[in-house]
Amino acid sequence: MTAASHYDDPKTLRAACRQGQWRNSTSGQCSGYVQANLAILPRDLAFDFLLFCNRNPRPCPVLEVTDPGDPMLREIAPGADLRTDLPAYRVFRDGEIIEERTDLLDVWSEDLVGFLLGCSYTFDAVLDSSGFPQAHHAEGREPGIYVSNIACKPAGRFKGPMVVTARAFSGDKVTEVVVLTSRFRKTHGGPVYVGDPSALGIDLAIPEPEYGGFPLQPEAGQVPLFWACGVTPQAVARASRVPFMITHKPGHMFVSDLTVDEVIRD
Amino acid sequence: MTAASHYDDPKTLRAACRQGQWRNSTSGQCSGYVQANLAILPRDLAFDFLLFCNRNPRPCPVLEVTDPGDPMLREIAPGADLRTDLPAYRVFRDGEIIEERTDLLDVWSEDLVGFLLGCSYTFDAVLDSSGFPQAHHAEGREPGIYVSNIACKPAGRFKGPMVVTARAFSGDKVTEVVVLTSRFRKTHGGPVYVGDPSALGIDLAIPEPEYGGFPLQPEAGQVPLFWACGVTPQAVARASRVPFMITHKPGHMFVSDLTVDEVIRD
Repeated sequence: MTAASHYDDPKTLRAACRQGQWRNSTSGQCSGYVQANLAILPRDLAFDFLLFCNRNPRPCPVLEVTDPGDPMLREIAPGADLRTDLPAYRVFRDGEIIEERTDLLDVWSEDLVGFLLGCSYTFDAVLDSSGFPQAHHAEGREPGIYVSNIACKPAGRFKGPMVVTARAFSGDKVTEVVVLTSRFRKTHGGPVYVGDPSALGIDLAIPEPEYGGFPLQPEAGQVPLFWACGVTPQAVARASRVPFMITHKPGHMFVSDLTVDEVIRD
Repeated sequence: MTAASHYDDPKTLRAACRQGQWRNSTSGQCSGYVQANLAILPRDLAFDFLLFCNRNPRPCPVLEVTDPGDPMLREIAPGADLRTDLPAYRVFRDGEIIEERTDLLDVWSEDLVGFLLGCSYTFDAVLDSSGFPQAHHAEGREPGIYVSNIACKPAGRFKGPMVVTARAFSGDKVTEVVVLTSRFRKTHGGPVYVGDPSALGIDLAIPEPEYGGFPLQPEAGQVPLFWACGVTPQAVARASRVPFMITHKPGHMFVSDLTVDEVIRD
């Protein structure tokens, strides 16, 4: 297989990840397919984390949970392997990133449970094609990812702030963007906040968003909109000093076989 | 407090349960408030059960999960006590009912986790008041509760059949009933099946539904509709020989402080 710069088909993109030919962001890839955030946790933290997701469905909408010890997906991408099929991973110990990896073959164990959580890249393509183009896509970038001052509902071992993605639209587009994205309940739904970033504790004077992406730069007449983001578990890992957790690298998502149409139905 | 035959307010009904003055079905009580099924499990089965609920959201829509050892609710009825605030309970060992109780004061332990799951009684009152009256309500009964041949998606220790409630409406009402109940995602949503009961393995010639309620008796021109039911965990406990589980007695629900309007928003 030859490396490509753009993929339409999730199976081909996942194979490229597996073969070391795609290590970039998945923003803008495989339009029409649902992308997912990844969190992998030891069995003894799995109940607390699943409860955290249930209590915080906006940042953590559960698409699939793997059986303990089994790295293979069965629902959203049958046959996909969590250990190899993402472009890049992060390993956390005691809440801190100890390494970034391109596969999990050496660190996977029989004790681990994988959680796939919906990603807002899913509706980004729909926004673009519905007449709501976004500045970050024009730049070939993912939206800015910021830590907000919204506290998630705690669950057992897990507590911490909600991470959000930021997009700006002109005032006359806001209603349609809100209605359209609200249909995507499994990929964060509608915005959690509309308006002044400082109300969420976000300072746009800091040039780089904490978890990457294209900095929010509202133009005159544009309103900032903030959606809950599946990077939240990474901020929660830090805040809660979670003993061990593996995630995707922000922006470097798992691309599933679910189509946008399938997820809208749910 | 004097015993009443009808309650409008959930707090008053729960107090009546606590004081031994209400041991009947909650069908038709506290119109406009959300009713909930109960499942209580030991901590070491809690992850498997929460995953079962996540994989089977139609029969098992999660309204609240308590922290391990804590019998008090915080979200859907702050201050309510799972040990006393339902009219009647069932205790299961190895999947079989070993006793029915009117409180859990002697059996509660620090190891237990409570799961509250939405109940279709919530939309029964809305159907009645929206011009879709139901035969079972005219009789002062709850809808018939049947074990179907639909297999739930398994999760760890839990597998088994989906339990359903049955209602019949004339053919010209079906669309409106489907659309209306589909809005109640947290209380089972729209029907899982419309039509011939035998397709679900349900034999109407058997006079009493397995889990009680008013037997389905479609009149000429009426179509049977089947909704997923929160008694499913009880059938799953039996099928999976779950070591220990406590539930409500079918029809004898937890009545929450959530209003129908609040749950429609979700």
